[in-house]
Amino acid sequence: MSYVKGYRCTICHQEFQEDEVTYTCPDCGDVGILDVLYDYKKIREVLSKESLTKDEDMSIWRYKALLPVESTYLGQTLRVGGTPLYTSIRLKNELGLNHLYIKDDGLNPTASLKDRASVIAVVKALEKGIDTIACSSTGNAASSLAGNAAHVGLKTVIFVPERAPIGKLTQLLIYGARVVSVQGDYGETFKLSKEAIDEYGWYNRNAAINPLLVEGKKTVVLEIMEQLNFEVPDWIVVSVGDGCTIGGVYKGLYDLLSLGFIKKMPKILGVQAQGCAPIYKAFVNNTPVEPTEENTLADSISVGIPRNPIKALDAVTLTHGMYLTVTDDEILEAMVLLGKMEGIFGEPAGVTSVAGIKKAMTEGYISEEDTVVSIVTGNGLKDVANGIKAAPEPMKIKPDISLFKKYYES
Amino acid sequence: MSYVKGYRCTICHQEFQEDEVTYTCPDCGDVGILDVLYDYKKIREVLSKESLTKDEDMSIWRYKALLPVESTYLGQTLRVGGTPLYTSIRLKNELGLNHLYIKDDGLNPTASLKDRASVIAVVKALEKGIDTIACSSTGNAASSLAGNAAHVGLKTVIFVPERAPIGKLTQLLIYGARVVSVQGDYGETFKLSKEAIDEYGWYNRNAAINPLLVEGKKTVVLEIMEQLNFEVPDWIVVSVGDGCTIGGVYKGLYDLLSLGFIKKMPKILGVQAQGCAPIYKAFVNNTPVEPTEENTLADSISVGIPRNPIKALDAVTLTHGMYLTVTDDEILEAMVLLGKMEGIFGEPAGVTSVAGIKKAMTEGYISEEDTVVSIVTGNGLKDVANGIKAAPEPMKIKPDISLFKKYYES
Repeated sequence: MSYVKGYRCTICHQEFQEDEVTYTCPDCGDVGILDVLYDYKKIREVLSKESLTKDEDMSIWRYKALLPVESTYLGQTLRVGGTPLYTSIRLKNELGLNHLYIKDDGLNPTASLKDRASVIAVVKALEKGIDTIACSSTGNAASSLAGNAAHVGLKTVIFVPERAPIGKLTQLLIYGARVVSVQGDYGETFKLSKEAIDEYGWYNRNAAINPLLVEGKKTVVLEIMEQLNFEVPDWIVVSVGDGCTIGGVYKGLYDLLSLGFIKKMPKILGVQAQGCAPIYKAFVNNTPVEPTEENTLADSISVGIPRNPIKALDAVTLTHGMYLTVTDDEILEAMVLLGKMEGIFGEPAGVTSVAGIKKAMTEGYISEEDTVVSIVTGNGLKDVANGIKAAPEPMKIKPDISLFKKYYES
Repeated sequence: MSYVKGYRCTICHQEFQEDEVTYTCPDCGDVGILDVLYDYKKIREVLSKESLTKDEDMSIWRYKALLPVESTYLGQTLRVGGTPLYTSIRLKNELGLNHLYIKDDGLNPTASLKDRASVIAVVKALEKGIDTIACSSTGNAASSLAGNAAHVGLKTVIFVPERAPIGKLTQLLIYGARVVSVQGDYGETFKLSKEAIDEYGWYNRNAAINPLLVEGKKTVVLEIMEQLNFEVPDWIVVSVGDGCTIGGVYKGLYDLLSLGFIKKMPKILGVQAQGCAPIYKAFVNNTPVEPTEENTLADSISVGIPRNPIKALDAVTLTHGMYLTVTDDEILEAMVLLGKMEGIFGEPAGVTSVAGIKKAMTEGYISEEDTVVSIVTGNGLKDVANGIKAAPEPMKIKPDISLFKKYYES
C-alpha cells in the first residue's frame, strides 16, 4: 500500500484527495504543479534507519514507503538507483575542500538520474492499466522513459522536434520507442504531443506536469543521506534546468526531516548555465521567472521556460542555500577535472554542479571547512561531442622509442 | 592477505611461486599465459555462502578472498561490479526459452565488463608502488584502465594506432590518460608500447600477458551464480574476442566448484563474430588458432590474433559447451531485440551473446527447456554509430493532430 495522503497545489495551496486529480491543480491549470503529501506517522511504523540496514534491495524500492506506488509491479522494473557515493580525495584537494562526496548518478540503467522519475511513471502506468506512455523531449527524460517502459513491456511514443540530432535519438529507437519527428519547433512538438496524449488517453511523463516524478527524483538524496549515515552535510549541489531535480532533492530532505532521520536541512546550491538561467535570475532579482534564451551546451539543463520554478526556488530559499551560474567554459573545465581527478565522465549538465562548487568557493558561499555533496546527473557517453570539445589533444608520434622518449620526457 | 598459492603455465604446466614471475612463463615466453592458483582450503575458512549474504559490500571486493589482491587499497577504488541480473520475461518469450537471465555489465563505472580487470591492475600497481600503468588498445580495456587509474591517482599511458576514431579516444582523454597516437598500424603500436613499458618500468595492463586480469573478469560469474542462489544454469553465453573474458567465466566457475558452492559446471557457449572467428575455427576444426582478418563491426571482439586461445578453448571444452559464430546483421538485430524487449542498450560485442542464443536454438544446441544466462559486456552508448545502423527510422510528420492520427493508426 502507498502512504500518500493527498496532493497540495504549489500555487493556491488547495489540498486534494488522490482520486480528485491526475496531473495539475484543477483550478490553477498547467502551472498548478502539485506536491504529494504523505502520512509520515504511518511511514515511521514501517521505515526506520534500522529497517533500512537490513533491506537487501539496493534499488530505489528500498524507499517504497516514501514513494507514491503500490508494491505489485516493483519486482518487474529495471534496477534504478543504488548508485555509488564516492568520498573524494583528489578533486577535494584540487578544490581546496576538507570533505567532498560525489554521487555518480550516470550509473543508472539508461545512464542518467532521470531513471528515478521514469520508473515511477512506468509503475504508475502499470497500476492504472494504461499500456502507452508519452512525452515530448529529445533528452534524458525520453531515453530513460523508453528504456524503463521497454523493460516492463509498455509502449512509448516520444515527440521530438526535427532538429533533434540522430545520436540522441538512437537510444530511444533502440529501446523500441515510437519516435515522432515533428516538422516544427519545440513549441509545436509539445502541443502535438499534448493533443495526442489527450486523444489516446496515454500516460503523460512530463516531469513538471506529473507530480509523481519529483517523488522518484528525491530518491537520489534519500540514498545520499543513507550513504552518509544520515549525517547532514553543509551543502548539496545540483545543476538546475526545469527545476524538477532540485525540487526532488528538497522533497527527499523534507521527508527525512519529517521522519526524524535528520535533524536539520543542508543548504542546497542550485547551479544554472550562464546562457540559460531563468531561475537564477528570478532568485537574485526576486522577480517572477521569465522565459530566457537557451544558449548553453549543457543541453539537459538548457530550459528557457522552466516548468517547476516554484519547487526550484523553494528548495534554495527554504534551506538558506544559493543559486549561481557558470559559463560553458567552466562546465567543460569541470568535465576534465572530474574525469582526471575521480575517473568519472559526466555529461555537461552532469558536471555543472562541480563547476558550481568551484565558483561558490571563489565567491565565498562555500568555505573549505564545509562538507559538500556534488550530484553528477548523467553519463558523459550520452554526449561525446561535447566531451571531444573538452578533452585535451593526444600526443602524435612515429613508432620509434627514441622519439617517444624525447616527447615523453620533455 | 591474498590466498594465491602460485601460478601455472597454461602451455608447459610448470608451477611458479608468486615472486618468481610477473607476467608470462619464463620458459614459454609471451605465449606462456599463466593461471593463478589458490589455496581453496584456506579460502573456505573465510568465505561461505552465508558470509556472503551478510556482506554489505556489493562491489567485486565481496569476493576478495578469491582475488589476487591484498586488502590495503580496496576502499579507494571505483565501485566495480554489483551489476544487475535480470530475469527476462519478454526476450525469453521471443527466443522461445523457459528461463533466461541477462547480466547487464555495461553498468560498470566506465560502462564495460573490462572494469573488473582494470581495477585489479590498478590495485596491483598500488601494491607494487608503481605510479604508471600502460596498455595499447583503443577500446574498452583502455578507457576502463584510464578511469580506474584516475580514481586512485595513478597515471596511465595509452598507445593507440592513429586510425583510432576520436570518439573512442574521448573517454580516455577525459579521464586524463596520456594518449600516444602512433603513426603506424596496430603491430607497430603494440611494439612501441612494449618498448616503453620495458624502458620505464610501468605496470602492464594487457589482459592476456597479465595473468591477474582474468581473475578480475571472473567476478562476473561469481556474481551471476550468487544472484542465482548458486543454482547452476544449463548455459552461460558470452561473446569472445581475445579469450580473456570467457577464460574468466570458466575460472570463476572452477573456483565455485572447488569451494563446493556449486556441484557441477554449466556449459559455456562462446560466440564469435563470423568476420573474425579464429577461436571458433580452431574449435570446430580441432586445429591450432591461426591469425584471421578482423572483419566485424563488433570492435570489442574484433581480435584476429587472440592472446588467450588456450583459456578460451578450455572454457568450452572442459564444460562440454560450444562455439558458434553470428553475422554482423544478426548482431545488429540482437541489439534492437535486447533494447526493445528488455530496455538494455548493449554495444555490438555486448549483444553478440544474445545473437548467439538465437543461433544456438536454431542449430539445436540450446533447447527451450534450458536455463540460459546471457552476459551483456558493454554499454551501447560506447558505440552510438553502430546503434544508428541498427535502429529503425523515426516517423516524420507535420505538427497536425489529424495527420498524426492517420499515420499512427495506419
